[in-house]
Amino acid sequence: MLYPLMYEPVVRAALAEDLGCAGDLTTDAAVPADARAVARFSARGAGRVAGLDAALSAFRMLDPALAVEPLLADGADVPAGGVLAVVSGAARPILTGERTALNLLGRLCGIATATRALVEAVAGTRARIACTRKTTPGLRALEKHAVRMGGGANHRFGLDDAVLVKDNHIVAAGGLGPALERLRSRLGHMVRIEVEVDTLDQLEILLRDPVDAVLLDNMDPQTLRRAVAMVGGRMITEASGNVTPETVRAIAESGVDMVSVGWITHSAPNLDIGLDFEPG
Amino acid sequence: MLYPLMYEPVVRAALAEDLGCAGDLTTDAAVPADARAVARFSARGAGRVAGLDAALSAFRMLDPALAVEPLLADGADVPAGGVLAVVSGAARPILTGERTALNLLGRLCGIATATRALVEAVAGTRARIACTRKTTPGLRALEKHAVRMGGGANHRFGLDDAVLVKDNHIVAAGGLGPALERLRSRLGHMVRIEVEVDTLDQLEILLRDPVDAVLLDNMDPQTLRRAVAMVGGRMITEASGNVTPETVRAIAESGVDMVSVGWITHSAPNLDIGLDFEPG
Amino acid sequence: MLYPLMYEPVVRAALAEDLGCAGDLTTDAAVPADARAVARFSARGAGRVAGLDAALSAFRMLDPALAVEPLLADGADVPAGGVLAVVSGAARPILTGERTALNLLGRLCGIATATRALVEAVAGTRARIACTRKTTPGLRALEKHAVRMGGGANHRFGLDDAVLVKDNHIVAAGGLGPALERLRSRLGHMVRIEVEVDTLDQLEILLRDPVDAVLLDNMDPQTLRRAVAMVGGRMITEASGNVTPETVRAIAESGVDMVSVGWITHSAPNLDIGLDFEPG
Amino acid sequence: MLYPLMYEPVVRAALAEDLGCAGDLTTDAAVPADARAVARFSARGAGRVAGLDAALSAFRMLDPALAVEPLLADGADVPAGGVLAVVSGAARPILTGERTALNLLGRLCGIATATRALVEAVAGTRARIACTRKTTPGLRALEKHAVRMGGGANHRFGLDDAVLVKDNHIVAAGGLGPALERLRSRLGHMVRIEVEVDTLDQLEILLRDPVDAVLLDNMDPQTLRRAVAMVGGRMITEASGNVTPETVRAIAESGVDMVSVGWITHSAPNLDIGLDFEPG
Amino acid sequence: MLYPLMYEPVVRAALAEDLGCAGDLTTDAAVPADARAVARFSARGAGRVAGLDAALSAFRMLDPALAVEPLLADGADVPAGGVLAVVSGAARPILTGERTALNLLGRLCGIATATRALVEAVAGTRARIACTRKTTPGLRALEKHAVRMGGGANHRFGLDDAVLVKDNHIVAAGGLGPALERLRSRLGHMVRIEVEVDTLDQLEILLRDPVDAVLLDNMDPQTLRRAVAMVGGRMITEASGNVTPETVRAIAESGVDMVSVGWITHSAPNLDIGLDFEPG
Amino acid sequence: MLYPLMYEPVVRAALAEDLGCAGDLTTDAAVPADARAVARFSARGAGRVAGLDAALSAFRMLDPALAVEPLLADGADVPAGGVLAVVSGAARPILTGERTALNLLGRLCGIATATRALVEAVAGTRARIACTRKTTPGLRALEKHAVRMGGGANHRFGLDDAVLVKDNHIVAAGGLGPALERLRSRLGHMVRIEVEVDTLDQLEILLRDPVDAVLLDNMDPQTLRRAVAMVGGRMITEASGNVTPETVRAIAESGVDMVSVGWITHSAPNLDIGLDFEPG
Repeated sequence: MLYPLMYEPVVRAALAEDLGCAGDLTTDAAVPADARAVARFSARGAGRVAGLDAALSAFRMLDPALAVEPLLADGADVPAGGVLAVVSGAARPILTGERTALNLLGRLCGIATATRALVEAVAGTRARIACTRKTTPGLRALEKHAVRMGGGANHRFGLDDAVLVKDNHIVAAGGLGPALERLRSRLGHMVRIEVEVDTLDQLEILLRDPVDAVLLDNMDPQTLRRAVAMVGGRMITEASGNVTPETVRAIAESGVDMVSVGWITHSAPNLDIGLDFEPG
Repeated sequence: MLYPLMYEPVVRAALAEDLGCAGDLTTDAAVPADARAVARFSARGAGRVAGLDAALSAFRMLDPALAVEPLLADGADVPAGGVLAVVSGAARPILTGERTALNLLGRLCGIATATRALVEAVAGTRARIACTRKTTPGLRALEKHAVRMGGGANHRFGLDDAVLVKDNHIVAAGGLGPALERLRSRLGHMVRIEVEVDTLDQLEILLRDPVDAVLLDNMDPQTLRRAVAMVGGRMITEASGNVTPETVRAIAESGVDMVSVGWITHSAPNLDIGLDFEPG
Repeated sequence: MLYPLMYEPVVRAALAEDLGCAGDLTTDAAVPADARAVARFSARGAGRVAGLDAALSAFRMLDPALAVEPLLADGADVPAGGVLAVVSGAARPILTGERTALNLLGRLCGIATATRALVEAVAGTRARIACTRKTTPGLRALEKHAVRMGGGANHRFGLDDAVLVKDNHIVAAGGLGPALERLRSRLGHMVRIEVEVDTLDQLEILLRDPVDAVLLDNMDPQTLRRAVAMVGGRMITEASGNVTPETVRAIAESGVDMVSVGWITHSAPNLDIGLDFEPG
Repeated sequence: MLYPLMYEPVVRAALAEDLGCAGDLTTDAAVPADARAVARFSARGAGRVAGLDAALSAFRMLDPALAVEPLLADGADVPAGGVLAVVSGAARPILTGERTALNLLGRLCGIATATRALVEAVAGTRARIACTRKTTPGLRALEKHAVRMGGGANHRFGLDDAVLVKDNHIVAAGGLGPALERLRSRLGHMVRIEVEVDTLDQLEILLRDPVDAVLLDNMDPQTLRRAVAMVGGRMITEASGNVTPETVRAIAESGVDMVSVGWITHSAPNLDIGLDFEPG
Repeated sequence: MLYPLMYEPVVRAALAEDLGCAGDLTTDAAVPADARAVARFSARGAGRVAGLDAALSAFRMLDPALAVEPLLADGADVPAGGVLAVVSGAARPILTGERTALNLLGRLCGIATATRALVEAVAGTRARIACTRKTTPGLRALEKHAVRMGGGANHRFGLDDAVLVKDNHIVAAGGLGPALERLRSRLGHMVRIEVEVDTLDQLEILLRDPVDAVLLDNMDPQTLRRAVAMVGGRMITEASGNVTPETVRAIAESGVDMVSVGWITHSAPNLDIGLDFEPG
Repeated sequence: MLYPLMYEPVVRAALAEDLGCAGDLTTDAAVPADARAVARFSARGAGRVAGLDAALSAFRMLDPALAVEPLLADGADVPAGGVLAVVSGAARPILTGERTALNLLGRLCGIATATRALVEAVAGTRARIACTRKTTPGLRALEKHAVRMGGGANHRFGLDDAVLVKDNHIVAAGGLGPALERLRSRLGHMVRIEVEVDTLDQLEILLRDPVDAVLLDNMDPQTLRRAVAMVGGRMITEASGNVTPETVRAIAESGVDMVSVGWITHSAPNLDIGLDFEPG
């Protein structure tokens, strides 16, 4: 659950960034204080909703007297032209908060929509789609939430909740053996360990002393299939690298448990959402 | 100029988000404290550099004893395989700061690279490429900087530095006339005014009482050309809407002064940058 | 508009500064928890109201159960003895918040009152009174608002919303010509440029290549009149330097568009406001 | 002592307020990155120095490579034309930090200078000049420091470090007796108590059960003299109300121990300080 | 009084620390969103209540729709098994906030309970029990409040509200004489001075020029009795050092005014409080 | 690893709490600015060191010119009388930072020392000592670090890094079965699950569908032994409840993998550390 105290600092900072010391020059000067309006958040294209409460909180922060009504919940699908929420009341705070709300909403719905596309593409396989730590600075909680709303699973939330041993760690530790030995003697009992391998040879070595999960990096579907067979259920298998809407199905059909994808958080296009505005 | 105090809070927050209370479980357990390393930031594809100082500050924050050496400056072009910076010293803080630095750098270089592509596409026309306020919450200063590094111009930085009268303002103000009258009596003398129009009819009305600039929204190149002719140099002309690498040249050849584009900040794909790591 | 999120951090910090870890030793010890009171904010001298909502928010922050009723709006005139607001409810939070509220209110009403005096002094001329960036650290949004409430116009809000080229910039740039050339090639299209000149010779040079506005610094009214004539409407004209209630009329009658004044923000005397307190 | 961690947040916030997301549009565009300069902080009028380290920290925050050299210490007197400090290095950060530094320095030197004038006016009497809690929101530590630098004493720093029983407390407590009784049973042993009286009758009542100090509010010098005699050394005596450079001597000659003044913090005019700039 | 703005930042930080970016993995996954519950805060052992409002604010921050009902007030005694408060509503935020609330409440009730024990042990003597500045970083306001709720008095709240001259100050100042001379010429009139002495010889020297209070450090009851006699009411007497529930009575019977104890804040055991939970 | 950015906000807040607006009244007034000193941090009793860098950072924050030299590293044992660190330079900042440094150091060494005692008590068994989430608000990263320095293991760092299903979750979820079903369908693949049981009957039910770990709550050593036998290595076994230095050995000898203890973080007595000060 995304409690408001997990997103309010982000929204408050975004409003402050937009308002500066001068506030909304256009609205404050052009629009009378007593003008009223009804505004509808409408999807210009179809997508999956995420971050609606966070986005709408911008209006509540500006003016608690606004009527702010979400029509859909996070996780719902919205068709092109569908209305996500209605905000009504004083026209000024609606105009002033519009861009902050849309910037957040467009990004998070974009992530949920991209995730949903991958989830649908692998339907029927055993694979789940997972995100990475390749998130926007400051928005990790929100972007990970958007991935869940798209039907995806969350990989690690940070460096602090699970172990993922990558090439560089092995280099720095002087080999996989010393790395695992050090890890096992130091970690608490509630921490899972995953190790990244690039080749089947590396996988074979890892299988002599398996951990909780293995990240099979940049392998083609055929190699992945062999890797899954070699693992034989002794570790959770995760594929990563070159995962696109076009390639994801073949990757998933290799039998891996997880497919992790960076671009759904760092490069997913915004969902185009607009605000239809009429006098209130 | 991006002074450190403009980006350090973003980087500090990103590190805090990644470290939590537990810190880097993997590195702290697997890598000995005295391991040393040399790490090179290398572009996996060609692009334009932006945000390098900000990204590298993550390493300085973790460990002031690291040697952090940028090899390129913001605004430079990097070829595929080109090295942007070298960081050397204790292996642990390099591994711990890697993702924070890459998340920031990939996004900002992605924005600069996307901007550069548009700037190059309109070379030889009078048009300049400009960004919008469709930026990531909390990252506006950095993303606007990346646009400049890509050769683009910055439109408004916030609601607080210039006036842009859009449809909704006109609706709320009860018409363009009342809106402009209110604006002129209230604004300080250092504020420029731009008005958005969707049709040539609206433009004709605006030309009876011109402002500093006109935003010609969602017009095709032919209509834009007629609009530019109607304006006849009395206002700065700006085109927006449906601007893509494919359409931007035709839009620019209409003779407009500015072409503004939202997606270079909200949906530009990250530039793929990796960290090549070897024992130090 | 001053939205609460623009002033609440200032008020919260002021309360924290006054309360420390110990809170209000006097009130907490001397006044019973169930004592009730009615408190009236009363102007000891006549003035212009500004910052009332911000000041009263101190009471709402301490105790949401207090009845907080403003009787005047920002921008209204209050006579000596006039009541600006009534706060009633538990006596303790009223006594505890009193100084924080008065410190803010006295300063902001002082600025509005000083501004009003200048605005009235130039009535009938074309000149508007404008403030500067000579504001109190941390209070710029509030002090600029107070200037507007006094009938003044806001000059730049920061270094970030318009260009003002002063002597030192010209020195550092190697001359006015290079400075303007650099500016025009780098600035976005929504930024106005003003240049400061100290002499008519400098003005003459500037007029060969005019910008949006000229700051005529430290000129006597007669020289200002000649400068206005030289400009002939090609630039907005602004006078600054040695502007006092005594000199402002003569300066304004020179025909300048703007008169900017630093002391209305940095040295205006507080308006004397007291709190009349009776058992509730 | 004002440790940097007591003023750095104020200076950082002031710079952020001035830079916004766009930074210094004028300097960044007009001044080449390699331009160098020497800048001298020069007093346009004579005064007492306060807050110099705090003000200069603005330059260090922007660019640690600047040479920042104070020539005077807080508490020193500066003649008209005297130089307080020299800053040299890159021209851009000097120009960008100038206003932030001057806004802080002008205010704090103004307070120190106003305090000094009162201190000199009462020279030879037993009275010390003290400030009040009528300070600028967010600047209390700095303004109280400026009072000390002017030779004044600090009254309470907040509601949390001493007790001052005013009229309203007595009203809310149901009388002076109950107020003092409650106070004495609740306060720690390190807290001093002062009570405000407006008349000699009230003083007489207080003298039946004296506290540490008495605030004699709005009494003329003759009445003050009688009050001092009545107290006869059993309490510290403090005069307040209508204290100006003209009246302070007579007030002090009444024999009171302290004279407290609100306007030295809330309404003292800034000391006029400028920055003389030359190519470096 | 502990106003909410004095404790809310602590509670908000504690929740953020517990929630991270991922939130409550267990509750969010295991408990349906529509599950409802009633939770009772119940003391596993007898004690004195302190910090209940602060602790309960964790639930209000998570979900303003929860019914949060304190059954006891700070300062009340709770028997083993007694219920302090009832929280009812959605089950998820109750489960999520439980640990944050209990961590704060257990500590503060622990401090109040430890203080109460000492206060009861010295009943009938003239001595009051006081705390020190040996508090937990960030929790001083709350822990000092808990001491008051336990019936204790607060010594200094910080370095900023009273003077306590210890051995090291005397060493650094070059002797007690110079230290006191410097203090008296520099301090405001509302600051009390206490001096620490370790021996009766030191006390004798101090008595030649007494201050407000004397801290008699690490003296046995007999020596304390002699010290009290030597002071003869000319200073407040405070004993410290080796104060335990076993020794405190004898120390108090020496006739000192105050007994100060560090361990009631830095080492008091938590009061064991649990949350009894049933479906709502 | 505890990077400075993980503890500096805590130390900065603690200093701010102690300094307020007035700073260190005693030191600033009594001690000359040019006095110098050497201060040694000395353990009054034997213990385990933790948090030394964090504590010493208080001095660096106050005055970067101080020489701050740790003599022991976190995790080392210090005998009674042993010196942990030496700080030398200006006397004022040493005296001013002393209490902040000692408050932090005493607590963290106290936790490490208490942990060490339990770790030593179970030497030779398979059990490791683990902490809980019963930490001080705001200090979790530091206190969990202190546990590691005492030789203990860290259990969950927050609600966000692992799943622990307790009685209340099962009640709210409508039974263990539904809870586990929901968890498994929703959690990412890197999250471990632990379930709390109070009786062997509950354990038997859990063993039909085991998870990663089982928390055996409040069982006596004999019951624990039976539980360990029932689990037979299929889950990690953890004992909690009534763990004291006296009981821990018997609990550990039951064969459990982990013994978790709340009081080592919430109620461990501070290690007594003093500062020996001499002129420098």
